[in-house]
Amino acid sequence: MHKPLDHQNRFAAGRREAGLLELGVCYYPEQWPREKWDEDARRMVELGLAWVRIGEFAWSHIEPQAGVFRWEWMDEAIGVLGRAGLKVILGTPTAAPPKWLVDRYPDILPVDARGITRKFGARRHYCFSSRRYRIEAARITEAMVRRYGENPFVHAWQTDNEYGDHDTIHSYSDEAKLAFREWLAARYGSIEELNRAWGTTFWSMHYNGFEEVDLPNNLVEEPTPTHLVDYYRFSSDQVKSFNKAQADLIRRHSPGRPVTHNFMSQNTDFDHYKVGEDIDIASWDVYPMGGLINGRLSEEEKARYLRVGDPDQVAFNHDLYRAVGRGRVWVMEQQPGPVNWAAHNQSPADGMVRLWTWLAYAHGADMVSYFRWRQAPFAQEQFHAGLLLPNGEADQGYLEVAQVAAEMARLPAGEVREKAPVAILLDYESRFATRALPQGRGYAASAIALDWYCAIARLGVDVDFIGQHSDLSGYRLVVAPDLVIPDMDFLARLKASGAKALFGPRSGSKTRDMHIPADLPPGPLADLIDFRVTRVESLPEFHSEPVLYGNTSHPVTGWRELIRTTETVLATFEGAHRPGSPAVIGNDRARYVATLPRGEFLTRLMGDTLGWAGVASLPDLGDLRLARRGRLRFAFNYAGVPAAVPASASAEFLVGGRTIGPADVAIWMEDEG
Amino acid sequence: MHKPLDHQNRFAAGRREAGLLELGVCYYPEQWPREKWDEDARRMVELGLAWVRIGEFAWSHIEPQAGVFRWEWMDEAIGVLGRAGLKVILGTPTAAPPKWLVDRYPDILPVDARGITRKFGARRHYCFSSRRYRIEAARITEAMVRRYGENPFVHAWQTDNEYGDHDTIHSYSDEAKLAFREWLAARYGSIEELNRAWGTTFWSMHYNGFEEVDLPNNLVEEPTPTHLVDYYRFSSDQVKSFNKAQADLIRRHSPGRPVTHNFMSQNTDFDHYKVGEDIDIASWDVYPMGGLINGRLSEEEKARYLRVGDPDQVAFNHDLYRAVGRGRVWVMEQQPGPVNWAAHNQSPADGMVRLWTWLAYAHGADMVSYFRWRQAPFAQEQFHAGLLLPNGEADQGYLEVAQVAAEMARLPAGEVREKAPVAILLDYESRFATRALPQGRGYAASAIALDWYCAIARLGVDVDFIGQHSDLSGYRLVVAPDLVIPDMDFLARLKASGAKALFGPRSGSKTRDMHIPADLPPGPLADLIDFRVTRVESLPEFHSEPVLYGNTSHPVTGWRELIRTTETVLATFEGAHRPGSPAVIGNDRARYVATLPRGEFLTRLMGDTLGWAGVASLPDLGDLRLARRGRLRFAFNYAGVPAAVPASASAEFLVGGRTIGPADVAIWMEDEG
Amino acid sequence: MHKPLDHQNRFAAGRREAGLLELGVCYYPEQWPREKWDEDARRMVELGLAWVRIGEFAWSHIEPQAGVFRWEWMDEAIGVLGRAGLKVILGTPTAAPPKWLVDRYPDILPVDARGITRKFGARRHYCFSSRRYRIEAARITEAMVRRYGENPFVHAWQTDNEYGDHDTIHSYSDEAKLAFREWLAARYGSIEELNRAWGTTFWSMHYNGFEEVDLPNNLVEEPTPTHLVDYYRFSSDQVKSFNKAQADLIRRHSPGRPVTHNFMSQNTDFDHYKVGEDIDIASWDVYPMGGLINGRLSEEEKARYLRVGDPDQVAFNHDLYRAVGRGRVWVMEQQPGPVNWAAHNQSPADGMVRLWTWLAYAHGADMVSYFRWRQAPFAQEQFHAGLLLPNGEADQGYLEVAQVAAEMARLPAGEVREKAPVAILLDYESRFATRALPQGRGYAASAIALDWYCAIARLGVDVDFIGQHSDLSGYRLVVAPDLVIPDMDFLARLKASGAKALFGPRSGSKTRDMHIPADLPPGPLADLIDFRVTRVESLPEFHSEPVLYGNTSHPVTGWRELIRTTETVLATFEGAHRPGSPAVIGNDRARYVATLPRGEFLTRLMGDTLGWAGVASLPDLGDLRLARRGRLRFAFNYAGVPAAVPASASAEFLVGGRTIGPADVAIWMEDEG
Repeated sequence: MHKPLDHQNRFAAGRREAGLLELGVCYYPEQWPREKWDEDARRMVELGLAWVRIGEFAWSHIEPQAGVFRWEWMDEAIGVLGRAGLKVILGTPTAAPPKWLVDRYPDILPVDARGITRKFGARRHYCFSSRRYRIEAARITEAMVRRYGENPFVHAWQTDNEYGDHDTIHSYSDEAKLAFREWLAARYGSIEELNRAWGTTFWSMHYNGFEEVDLPNNLVEEPTPTHLVDYYRFSSDQVKSFNKAQADLIRRHSPGRPVTHNFMSQNTDFDHYKVGEDIDIASWDVYPMGGLINGRLSEEEKARYLRVGDPDQVAFNHDLYRAVGRGRVWVMEQQPGPVNWAAHNQSPADGMVRLWTWLAYAHGADMVSYFRWRQAPFAQEQFHAGLLLPNGEADQGYLEVAQVAAEMARLPAGEVREKAPVAILLDYESRFATRALPQGRGYAASAIALDWYCAIARLGVDVDFIGQHSDLSGYRLVVAPDLVIPDMDFLARLKASGAKALFGPRSGSKTRDMHIPADLPPGPLADLIDFRVTRVESLPEFHSEPVLYGNTSHPVTGWRELIRTTETVLATFEGAHRPGSPAVIGNDRARYVATLPRGEFLTRLMGDTLGWAGVASLPDLGDLRLARRGRLRFAFNYAGVPAAVPASASAEFLVGGRTIGPADVAIWMEDEG
Repeated sequence: MHKPLDHQNRFAAGRREAGLLELGVCYYPEQWPREKWDEDARRMVELGLAWVRIGEFAWSHIEPQAGVFRWEWMDEAIGVLGRAGLKVILGTPTAAPPKWLVDRYPDILPVDARGITRKFGARRHYCFSSRRYRIEAARITEAMVRRYGENPFVHAWQTDNEYGDHDTIHSYSDEAKLAFREWLAARYGSIEELNRAWGTTFWSMHYNGFEEVDLPNNLVEEPTPTHLVDYYRFSSDQVKSFNKAQADLIRRHSPGRPVTHNFMSQNTDFDHYKVGEDIDIASWDVYPMGGLINGRLSEEEKARYLRVGDPDQVAFNHDLYRAVGRGRVWVMEQQPGPVNWAAHNQSPADGMVRLWTWLAYAHGADMVSYFRWRQAPFAQEQFHAGLLLPNGEADQGYLEVAQVAAEMARLPAGEVREKAPVAILLDYESRFATRALPQGRGYAASAIALDWYCAIARLGVDVDFIGQHSDLSGYRLVVAPDLVIPDMDFLARLKASGAKALFGPRSGSKTRDMHIPADLPPGPLADLIDFRVTRVESLPEFHSEPVLYGNTSHPVTGWRELIRTTETVLATFEGAHRPGSPAVIGNDRARYVATLPRGEFLTRLMGDTLGWAGVASLPDLGDLRLARRGRLRFAFNYAGVPAAVPASASAEFLVGGRTIGPADVAIWMEDEG
Repeated sequence: MHKPLDHQNRFAAGRREAGLLELGVCYYPEQWPREKWDEDARRMVELGLAWVRIGEFAWSHIEPQAGVFRWEWMDEAIGVLGRAGLKVILGTPTAAPPKWLVDRYPDILPVDARGITRKFGARRHYCFSSRRYRIEAARITEAMVRRYGENPFVHAWQTDNEYGDHDTIHSYSDEAKLAFREWLAARYGSIEELNRAWGTTFWSMHYNGFEEVDLPNNLVEEPTPTHLVDYYRFSSDQVKSFNKAQADLIRRHSPGRPVTHNFMSQNTDFDHYKVGEDIDIASWDVYPMGGLINGRLSEEEKARYLRVGDPDQVAFNHDLYRAVGRGRVWVMEQQPGPVNWAAHNQSPADGMVRLWTWLAYAHGADMVSYFRWRQAPFAQEQFHAGLLLPNGEADQGYLEVAQVAAEMARLPAGEVREKAPVAILLDYESRFATRALPQGRGYAASAIALDWYCAIARLGVDVDFIGQHSDLSGYRLVVAPDLVIPDMDFLARLKASGAKALFGPRSGSKTRDMHIPADLPPGPLADLIDFRVTRVESLPEFHSEPVLYGNTSHPVTGWRELIRTTETVLATFEGAHRPGSPAVIGNDRARYVATLPRGEFLTRLMGDTLGWAGVASLPDLGDLRLARRGRLRFAFNYAGVPAAVPASASAEFLVGGRTIGPADVAIWMEDEG
């Protein structure tokens, strides 16, 4: 269970009173000559920045040899920045242990799924299960937080950096194996309970003791899915405890400063809600260009949105991390131009740096920080743009930030993001489940959730994300695209809440032990909506099935379930195979979708569902997106042509106007709250 | 040489008298509570099942710790099933050694081609060359067969499970290296003979002794093909001797019970004929849905046959394993619904479980067993359908089996599959040869053989498979799509047989040492048909060459040979490159095809060839398939629309009628034999 | 810096006086019975061959056990060949160390990027950094050169064989690690200088000593690009010193015989100019069929040129290796028919063996040797054609060589290839740079350089290749498609030379330390043409940008730079993103292209640039290619239809005529020189 700590949101009140966006930047004083620092600090303030993050990769600069500390430069850097008026976010440097440390303790290094040790030379080269690294990470964190915990210029802390980047959550080291066994012993109590849960009567997999259990890599064939999911859970818990150790040290020595971590976009290798319990603000790193290239869209769509990005992926993550931060979300890194790490690295359209900044604010962010101040002329990220070019000239991003800072002055204080009428449920354990048992290449939970989010967004409706632990009060509609493993407690609270619910395929299809429910799927969900799944099939992308919904036939592919139900049938499969079998069913409380609608079918289904739940929506917005924060209304144009903003006649425009061009933004206030 | 053992077909007579199909199911009592067993047994009998296979993954349940045996549950299970009237097939549990055994003797584990040990946690985690595992496999087999060899309810034995699944024939362990050296020493006698055969004057590869020879993995570049083919032969022989050790133990302690092994569809990692010598019945596992997805067809064709499968792949394997079993073939596992292991896992069309059952019978199977009785709600295969849903309800497969059982009652006894007029030669050594030297991505022997089979099947002609060791009497036509390494003995018998022969490209292109024949290809085949191959080229799929055959120009791709011949030219290459060079040649005994015809060209060529050989055929059947067993005639409709059955006016229909719908079957008797 | 040795071109004068093409063949007496040698030698001479290469894979035949030498067969073979009138090229056998040597010293073996040792069983199984292998390679080389250095029949030496084949330049062994550290210490002097160059303030990568530095494999993420490029430089230097050791031994013991090495087509794993400094003649291996299949062209183009090959790839390499050999280029291996190693292995069109031979001569080659005399019926390359079939019959290649030999008799002596008006700069360090930092899948320097070469060739203009060290005198135009790291010295000489220059994108974008220049790209190039690159983007192939050039809009993709300039803008980007930004700029000395033109845009741009530089060109030749050598003019027809040759009315045809068919050649003399 999630036990929110008593320090949670202890910083929320003060910040929310302001309700205004602050800007910041990531800075690496250790990479620049001392003589540039003062001017850099001055220019940051001049640009309108309030925050500066430093230190998160500085370990070898702080402690170049074992026990030899060089704090002077950091003292100086914090002083220069702070005296210029900037609030410093200090990062613990544990994402990049120095070479001397790795050489001294090689078991720090992570091991990949082939069993090959991953070497020093980049970053994140540590195994979360290394007991030695836990000690060393605590040692350097404590040293840093003791030195700067009470520093007047240090206003916040970041733990480590981007947990999960470069596929580093899952390590297959001996240390991980030992820790996994302990974790299993704690979870199951007895080996027989593990044998029961894992179904080891299958394929003669019985274990006589926890010391016999190994990590699920380099097997002849897939391991039992419970083995895999437990390994994912274990790995997730390792991240939580690693992070919590740092957060605890920071709180002990730096009271009153919020702790954050900068998450990655849409990483589901660990349970972000659980890590979120131990921090005060969830921040994340916004890289929409690579997100587009690596993302769910077709090539045709990627070409269309090439320099504006997927119109929903960024907003999705703001809303998700707002939930992870229990209301508080920051952007710790936002790309100010092209980056270096995707298969293709296109430039954002002019205006997008500004648009993304306003988008963050509209979705509840209190702070947006750009990565990075000045482009580095050396090392791995030298093709990564900064606000300044390597020679110090202002680049496009700088100009757009200046514009945002100016526009911000026109906005009223005190506007906060309110609860949305619709909540989307994202459950990390369910993601572990479908990762372990995808049952077909056509099923990708991340893409499905984003598709569903997109359908709601196109209808102009704001969304919150929730986990199963979340408070459900106030929501009119709960949307669960992939709740494979529902909690009884969640279902009880959902029933009590009065919210209507829309469930995607596979909902309720597994128990916590990764078994099929005794009464067939959807297991306990059947209390809410009466049906049974008697067969599932995963379908190749070159085949589609027609579904009749609202007198129109829509093609679906990827997934189809055969269900038996006493509920109202809202859509049916047509075609040669079992024509007439239900595709969407519902009663007055819940609806279930037995396939993967996309495109027009999905938008239409979502529109009808919003109406059914009493949520007001707009006609399909195409490539326009809306958001609201307090009395403020926002519109964002992702199209290549101008768009009309759906503002009332009496709307008061603070930024932009009734028609906005490509990559442009409008902000206005409506009379009705 | 293949030396058929004297026990061969010792069970055939009795079974063939009956000539009727028996049904069965795979069951795992160890996976269910004791209290379900009796009802399960009762329902099996009620459904019309006669056989039940158990035990093949039960090692850790039988011997949970070293030397600690728990036979009681198995005694009980066999008793419950047997007393209900079921004949038990008992599987030796060697496909899944327990964890305690692997921990005690880690050299049991197989090693993959990268040199990485494959770990416990699934199945087939053993190396065929592990001397320790040979001892342990014999120990558990003997223990089991001593206990149940004379059990009145045990009527047959299965050795291990699916040799070759998960790419487990080829292991690169130290144990395999040592065994390979011994195998080479036995094969070649002297290292100089190996040097000659392997051509080690090339690239300075000379060996001074067998102890210098290593396994052919992790090389800088391809090894000499004789090295590879010898490794494939060695690996194949390891399977044979592993299997024979079990069969021998079973025969010693369980006299009178047939031994079988359940082969995989179209696996060519080892010589199935050789393993087949040591068993009494060849059984195989029928999974047409995954077979389609992973198979030879284009995406368009896969979409067309999505829920009925490749119309020829299943029949091909029945005919092949009938040859492996020297006339006796069983289906040990047939999918009763969707499975879990392919890239996409679609549902079979309703009716296909019944169709596949009748197809098996038509192609000579005496027993069809379904995998599995009840869908497991846990472990790796929880998405694999059973006859029953996890909660015990009858699923679609159950209903179709019931229908088959009812229909079977209408059939006369005593009908046996007769020798076909056409034999297709499948030679495993030739498959090793083209695997070692594919000479271009366009050459895939498995797909070619299936294409050729399909062309014959579309013309309504029954087929037998043969190896080079097989008796050729009675065949009018021998078709050899890829006989790369012909035996002199085979060729002599072919000449003596009076059968006509059709050879595909590459026939006779290698000696047993994997050399080009001294007189150029086709080596000794030239005695049968006079030509020489002076050049071969492998062609990319984006290029095709026109071939003029019967006044029509057909495109071919993938493979083209330049040949010189005194024989009649039946088809010629056209186009810019060497126009007029022969594509098909022939005399009155043999024909040779110097390219890879497909589609209409292949069907037409095959039709003409059947006519030339005096084999009666029908016009192209499209998606209808026929078969005959004794006086019985069968038709199977793989099309999406109804099909007319080519029955005579006087035909007596036992199942279905003159027109059958999609996925439907007709069975009738004709007056003429 | 490149320091040409004093022995350079010491053999050039004599050869150039002749100016005629000699022919040769690769032969393996150790692979054939002694009784065939005499006839083979006789037939070689009869065919018109002058040279024969032997020995390069004969180590285990020469020294079958440690210290046991069997020279007799080689004495005999050299004698037989020499007495028949052939000049022997003797290869050192170090490309294939024997098994007994590898077993004795396992640290000879190379290690792949995963850290897995690559085993014996093919060839090139050695690590260039193995100190033991250096000793052993010197030992066998010295033994061989001492025995045959003064042999009257040995006229030339080849070192090793095809450096770089099978990805063997880069080894990740412990030996390589130690050698890399020494190399770094020598390069940087102090670890702090390395830290500065590598930018180790980034990601906490600081090193305290060279002994801490590791090889750049199995990292969590990309290493710093300077780490990678230094590893590439180090690996390249290892090849140079390995080769030089052999060349030095040969020169000491075999005075007066030229030393060559047979390079691979377009391998850029090491600096060929540097290795070329230590040899007398650069030879290379011509395999156009595999070159096409693996090459830059689209599938449509590959189908079109299937049996003639990429019309420019072979000529490109002749011109390149002519530069590597400082004017002297040989073809050591030319394919005489289909080969065995590509994904598809089509036959060359009849005539192509002759065409390629004339092409080599036209581009300056003095000798063309075919691989191989007789097709081997065993081992890895048994599908590789020879001049003779395995049974000794003449194959197509043999007939075409005979034709060339006859035609050669009609040509005048003394014609030498003259300096071309255009030089293309190929800089290996720049290739290392873009390999380390591709910044997008759309950027492939090899394909780009070949595209640019093709555009010049289509306009009938001869080309030389140069490195930055090369003499620039006499060139009217220097074309640099990818000069990422320009030398100051080169730029000074370019300015002084009077040549005009055309630079591709990324030119000048990195310093030698792989940093962005302090003043932004193009760094020192800005002295030549005034602009600054303020942003780069790599673009996916599914998106293109329109560029307006000469009143026509051309689509470009893959790469786009945003530049700021005071120079004349010759082409501009159009479309939605920053329309009007310069795509091509220029002044009276230099032009810069800020994108990757292809097809018609590139041909047009190149035509205009040639005109601007005062280089005469022809209208687009389509699939015809021209070349000149002294007074001789050559035309080569790669089209499927006949082509008219652009000869003057007074041209005197020596081979062919004014119209030539597909795969045909014309040679004529014009009055004007």
